[in-house]
Amino acid sequence: MTTYTDLNPSTRILLGPGPSMADPRVLRAMSAPLIGHLDPQFIKIMDEVQEMLRTVFQTENELTIPVSGTGSAAMEAALCNFIEEGDKVLVAVNGYFGERLIDMAQRYGAKVDRIDRPWGEVFDSAEIETALKKEKYKLLALVHAETSTGARQPEIQAITKAAHENGALVVLDTVTSLGGLPLEIDAWDVDIAYSGTQKALSCPPGLGPLTIGPRGREALKNRKSQVANWYLDLTLVEKYWGDNRTYHHTAPISMNYALREALRLVVEEGLENRFARHQKHAELLWQGLEDLGLPLLVEKDYRLPTLSTPQLPSGLDDASVRKRLLSEFNIEVAGGFGPLAGKVWRIGLMGYSSRKENVTLLLATLKEIL
Amino acid sequence: MTTYTDLNPSTRILLGPGPSMADPRVLRAMSAPLIGHLDPQFIKIMDEVQEMLRTVFQTENELTIPVSGTGSAAMEAALCNFIEEGDKVLVAVNGYFGERLIDMAQRYGAKVDRIDRPWGEVFDSAEIETALKKEKYKLLALVHAETSTGARQPEIQAITKAAHENGALVVLDTVTSLGGLPLEIDAWDVDIAYSGTQKALSCPPGLGPLTIGPRGREALKNRKSQVANWYLDLTLVEKYWGDNRTYHHTAPISMNYALREALRLVVEEGLENRFARHQKHAELLWQGLEDLGLPLLVEKDYRLPTLSTPQLPSGLDDASVRKRLLSEFNIEVAGGFGPLAGKVWRIGLMGYSSRKENVTLLLATLKEIL
Repeated sequence: MTTYTDLNPSTRILLGPGPSMADPRVLRAMSAPLIGHLDPQFIKIMDEVQEMLRTVFQTENELTIPVSGTGSAAMEAALCNFIEEGDKVLVAVNGYFGERLIDMAQRYGAKVDRIDRPWGEVFDSAEIETALKKEKYKLLALVHAETSTGARQPEIQAITKAAHENGALVVLDTVTSLGGLPLEIDAWDVDIAYSGTQKALSCPPGLGPLTIGPRGREALKNRKSQVANWYLDLTLVEKYWGDNRTYHHTAPISMNYALREALRLVVEEGLENRFARHQKHAELLWQGLEDLGLPLLVEKDYRLPTLSTPQLPSGLDDASVRKRLLSEFNIEVAGGFGPLAGKVWRIGLMGYSSRKENVTLLLATLKEIL
Repeated sequence: MTTYTDLNPSTRILLGPGPSMADPRVLRAMSAPLIGHLDPQFIKIMDEVQEMLRTVFQTENELTIPVSGTGSAAMEAALCNFIEEGDKVLVAVNGYFGERLIDMAQRYGAKVDRIDRPWGEVFDSAEIETALKKEKYKLLALVHAETSTGARQPEIQAITKAAHENGALVVLDTVTSLGGLPLEIDAWDVDIAYSGTQKALSCPPGLGPLTIGPRGREALKNRKSQVANWYLDLTLVEKYWGDNRTYHHTAPISMNYALREALRLVVEEGLENRFARHQKHAELLWQGLEDLGLPLLVEKDYRLPTLSTPQLPSGLDDASVRKRLLSEFNIEVAGGFGPLAGKVWRIGLMGYSSRKENVTLLLATLKEIL
C-alpha cells in the first residue's frame, strides 16, 4: 500500500497572479470546527459575508454573494444568467480574460462581436461607445483588471453610461481589482461584476464574489428561458442566499469562514488605506524593476498596482530564472502567456503579499540572479 | 462602521445529511500556508489526491478528479459533459436527487424519460432493464445513495450490465455512499460517478469527486458540439488535472489540502474497516430508534449506513424538537423534505461523525426530549 506523508508545503512568498498569501488569521479561521450550512450561526456568517462584500464592492446591491466555486465560476455566472440563445454580446478584448468571456458567452448561444486592443493596452471609452452603436447589444463585457497583462481599464463610468444609453447591460471582470484598487460598483453604475477571493482579498481560492445591480436583476426576472446551468442559476442561488434560505447546494463552510475573516481584515484596514498600500508598494517595485533594466509593459497611468508586468531582456531564460526563484528563494512569480509568453513576468503584490519586505526581497533576489 | 466579532462557531455534533464533522487533522491540514496552483509541490498534491480518490472509488479510471465546486457541481459535470441537444436520457427517480438529475439534464437539451418509485423505496434491476428497452437512451442516471430518503439502491452491477447491453452510459450519484459503504466503480462497471466531500469522506464541503470510465471518455471524445458549460467542461479540466497541466481555473488550494488529509485518513483506516464501522454504528442507531418508537422508513436491507430516516410519531413538533437538539445539545439532525417533510428525520453517521459516543448521546438526548 502506498503511504502518504504529512502535508508539509514550503512557506512560499507568493508574488504571482494568485493565489496571493493569506493572512495567518484567515488560515486560522478556516480551521474552525464545521457547522451545518443551514445552522442559524452559519446563516449569520452568510449575512456578514454578504454585508462585507457589499462594502468592498462599494455597492448596496442586495444580490451580492460568494459563488461556490472559484472566480471562473463567478465569471460564468455573470454571463450565463443574462444570456439567452441568440442574444447579441459585445466583448472588449485586450488580454486572455477577454477571450475567455467570448468563449463562455458563445456556449450560452450568444452572438458575440468583439473589439480589440493589443495585450497590455486599454480602451478609450469613445471607441467602445462607437462599437456599442453598431448593433443592439444585450450585454457589454469587459475587464477592469487584466490578469494576463497588468492593465487597468480606465473610464468605466463613461463606458457604463454609453452602454446604458444604448440599452446594454455591463458585465465587469474585477478579479484582480476587488480590494486592491478603486472600484465603485454603484458610483460607476456597473450592472454585474465578479471577482475571485485569491487575489487582493488574500483569501484562499474557492469562492467567487459576484454582485448584481437593479438592471441585472430585472433582466434575470425577464428571462424567457431557464438558465442553461443549474449550479450557477441565480434564480435558485438567490433564494438560498436571500431571505428564503431555500436549499440549493451545500455552501463551502470553511471557505466562507476564510472569506469572512479576509473581508474583516479589509474592513479593519479601510479601503482607502488598502488601496494606498497597494499603490505605494507597486510604485516601489516599478522603480526597482526599471533600475534593473526591466521596463514595465503597461503605460504608467494604466498599470494595476496589484499585478505588474516587467518586460524581459531578450535572451533571458525565463523559465529557469523563475525556477531558481522558487527553488532557492521560495518566491513565486509567473510568466506571461499567449502573445506575452517569454516576454514578460507577472508579479503580483496583492493583499497580504503587498508588503514592503516582499518588494525589497524580490528586487534583491533579481539583482543577484540576473 | 459595523464591527465584526471574531469567528467563533459552536462546536456542533453534526448528525445531519452533511456536512459531517471533519477530523481535526483535516482542519489542521487546511490551515497550512498557501502555495501556487502550478507549484510543483501542488502538482504532487493533485497527483496524490487523484490516486487516493481512485482507491476510494475502487477504480483505475485515469480521469478521477475533485471538481472545484461542491457535490452539486460534480453532479452537473457528470451530466453536461455527456449530453448534447436532443439526447435521450432515462432517470430513475426515488427521491429528491433523482428529480434534480432530470432538471439538470433538461437544461442541456436532453429528452428525459423517467421511471419512478416512491421516496424511500428502491428499484428492481429488472424494471430498469425493461425501461431501458423502450428507447435508445444515451444515458441512464440513477442514485446509489438517496440523501433525501436514506435508501441504498442495490444491484448496481446488474443495472449497468442492462444499460450497456442497450447502449446506454450509466451515471451514478454516490454523494452519500463514497467512503461509507461498498462502492466499486470498476467491478460494477459504472461509467460516470460523482460525489461530495462533506459526507462520508468527512472533509469540508467545496469539492466534488468525479470519476469517468473508458466508455465515458470515449463519449466525451465523440461529442459533436462543445460542452455547454465552460467551468465544468472536462475536455478543458482533464488537461489541467492530466499531464499537460494547462491552466483552466485556479484550483481551491486549501480545499485540496483538506481533501488530501481526509483521503489519507480513509486509506489509513482501510475501506473494509471503514464500511464496517459505518454499518456497526448505524445498526446501533436503528435499534435505539426502534426502541424509542421511531421505526425506520427504509426496509433494512436497503438502508444506508450513512443516513438513517426514522419516521416521526404523528403530532410530534418536528421543527421545535430539532431546534432544541441544536440549541440545548449542539446536535444537528435534519428534517425530511418533499413528500417526507414532517414525516421523517434524516440522521447522518458519516465519516468522523460515525462514532459510538455520538449514537449513545443522540439516543439519550432523544429519550430525554421525546
